[in-house]
Amino acid sequence: MKKPLILISNDDSIYASGIAALVEALEPFGELIIVAPDSHQSGMGHAVTVGRTLTYASGAHVFPLHQSYHTSGTPVDCVKLGLDKILDRKPDLIVSGINHGSNSSINVIYSGTMAAAIEGAVSGIPSIGFSLCDFSPDADFSLAKQVIAQIVPKILETGLPIGVALNVNIPKIDIENYKGIKISRQATARWSENFEQRTDPYGRNYYWMVGKFILNDQGTDTDEWALANGYTSVVPVHTDLTAYEALENLRKIDF
Amino acid sequence: MKKPLILISNDDSIYASGIAALVEALEPFGELIIVAPDSHQSGMGHAVTVGRTLTYASGAHVFPLHQSYHTSGTPVDCVKLGLDKILDRKPDLIVSGINHGSNSSINVIYSGTMAAAIEGAVSGIPSIGFSLCDFSPDADFSLAKQVIAQIVPKILETGLPIGVALNVNIPKIDIENYKGIKISRQATARWSENFEQRTDPYGRNYYWMVGKFILNDQGTDTDEWALANGYTSVVPVHTDLTAYEALENLRKIDF
Repeated sequence: MKKPLILISNDDSIYASGIAALVEALEPFGELIIVAPDSHQSGMGHAVTVGRTLTYASGAHVFPLHQSYHTSGTPVDCVKLGLDKILDRKPDLIVSGINHGSNSSINVIYSGTMAAAIEGAVSGIPSIGFSLCDFSPDADFSLAKQVIAQIVPKILETGLPIGVALNVNIPKIDIENYKGIKISRQATARWSENFEQRTDPYGRNYYWMVGKFILNDQGTDTDEWALANGYTSVVPVHTDLTAYEALENLRKIDF
Repeated sequence: MKKPLILISNDDSIYASGIAALVEALEPFGELIIVAPDSHQSGMGHAVTVGRTLTYASGAHVFPLHQSYHTSGTPVDCVKLGLDKILDRKPDLIVSGINHGSNSSINVIYSGTMAAAIEGAVSGIPSIGFSLCDFSPDADFSLAKQVIAQIVPKILETGLPIGVALNVNIPKIDIENYKGIKISRQATARWSENFEQRTDPYGRNYYWMVGKFILNDQGTDTDEWALANGYTSVVPVHTDLTAYEALENLRKIDF
C-alpha cells in the first residue's frame, strides 16, 4: 500500500521551530511534502495573493530529508500552489502548524495557520491546524508532538466531513497536569485593541497594535474552557459563515 | 437628535470609485467618517498587521467634505484603528465597499471588504459589506447606490443581532431586469486554481494565480441563485466557524 501523502504548511515560515516539530511528529505517518511561506505570515487570515505574482523555491536547506518548498505567498497561497502546481497527486491530509501561539476562539479568523487548514477543507481534503498556546520561539513542543501522534493517524483512518477542518489547540502545561483531548465549540470572544502611539525620527506618528483578549462566553463546552482546564481543544470548523438563526428575522424586514 | 455616525471602509483603497459611490449613497443617512487603506487590499481576507507598525493620515484630498483618513493597513486594521484611535464615539453602523467584484459564496472568506464588516460585527456594531458583481474600475454603481439607500436606513432602524454582519451583493444587470432583494444563505462553492507560469528577465519562474469558480450547490435559497436570477443577495454572516453537525461524530472517535 502507498503511504499517505501529507502536505504541510504553516504561517510562521519554513524556518520556524513549530514546523520542524510538526515534520518530526508526522514522519511515522506518511510521505511528507512541505510548502511553507518564506517569511512570517502571522495574522494573515485567509489572505491570498491577487494581482501580484508568486514564486517558490526548494527548501532542501531546511528539510533535506523531505520534498520541501518555500513560497513568497501567504499560507493559503502555499496550499493553493501545493495542490495545483507542486504535488503530483492529491494529498490524503493537509496539516498546518505547529503555530507559536493559540488559535482558539475568535483567533481562528485572524490565523494564517488555520486559514491553510481551512483552504484544504474547501478543496475537499481532510485538514488539521495545530497550535501550541505558547508564543515563545523556544516553546517546548513535546506535548504537541504527542497530541499530533494521537490525532493524525485517527483522522487518516476516519477522514473528516467534506468542508470541515480541525482547529487543534494544545495548552501550555506540565505533562503531569495534562488531561487529554476535548471536542469543543468555538468560544465567543474578541480582542479589544489599543494602539500605542510612537513618534519616528522625522516627527511622524506611528502605531503598534496591542490587544486585550475579552472572553464573552461562560460555556464549559468551549475551546477556551478546555484549554483553561488542562485539555487540548479540538474544534471542527467550516466555511459556511451564514448566520442561519438570523435569516427568519431578516426576511421580516420590508426592504 | 444626533445624526447616526457611520464608519466607512473598503479594500480597494480610499482612491477607488466604489468607496466614492458608497459615500455619496450614505450622505443622506448620517455623519460619515472614512477610514480606508491607502493601497489595494483585495484578497486580504481577515489579515491584521501584527509585529509591524501602522500609520494613518488625512484623506481630505479625496473626501474634502467628510472626516477621512487613509491607513497603511488592511481593511481590518482600518476598522480597529477607526474604533480605538480615530473616532471619538462608537459608530452606529460600519459600512464597507462598494467592492469592485462579487463577494458571494466562498468569496466571503477571501474578501477584505467583508472582513472589515465582520470585524465590525465582532466589535458589536451593526455592519454591512456591499459588493457589485462587476470588476471593472468604471463599473456603473447606480443600482448599487439605490440598494444601499434601501438597506441602510432599515438596518439603522432595526439593528442587527450581536456578532452578525450583512454580506450584500448586487448583480450586474440592467435596471429593467432587476428583481429586488433576496435574503439568502451562502452557497457552497470553491475556486479551482491554476498557476500560470512565466519566466522573468533573469531566467527565474514566477506564477500568476488564475482561478475557476466551481459552484457545488443547486439550492434556490443561495446567494449565487439570487444573483443569477436578477436579485441582490443579502446573507447574514457570523464568526462562529464551529461545524456543529460534526461535533457528535468527532466525539465518537477514541483518540
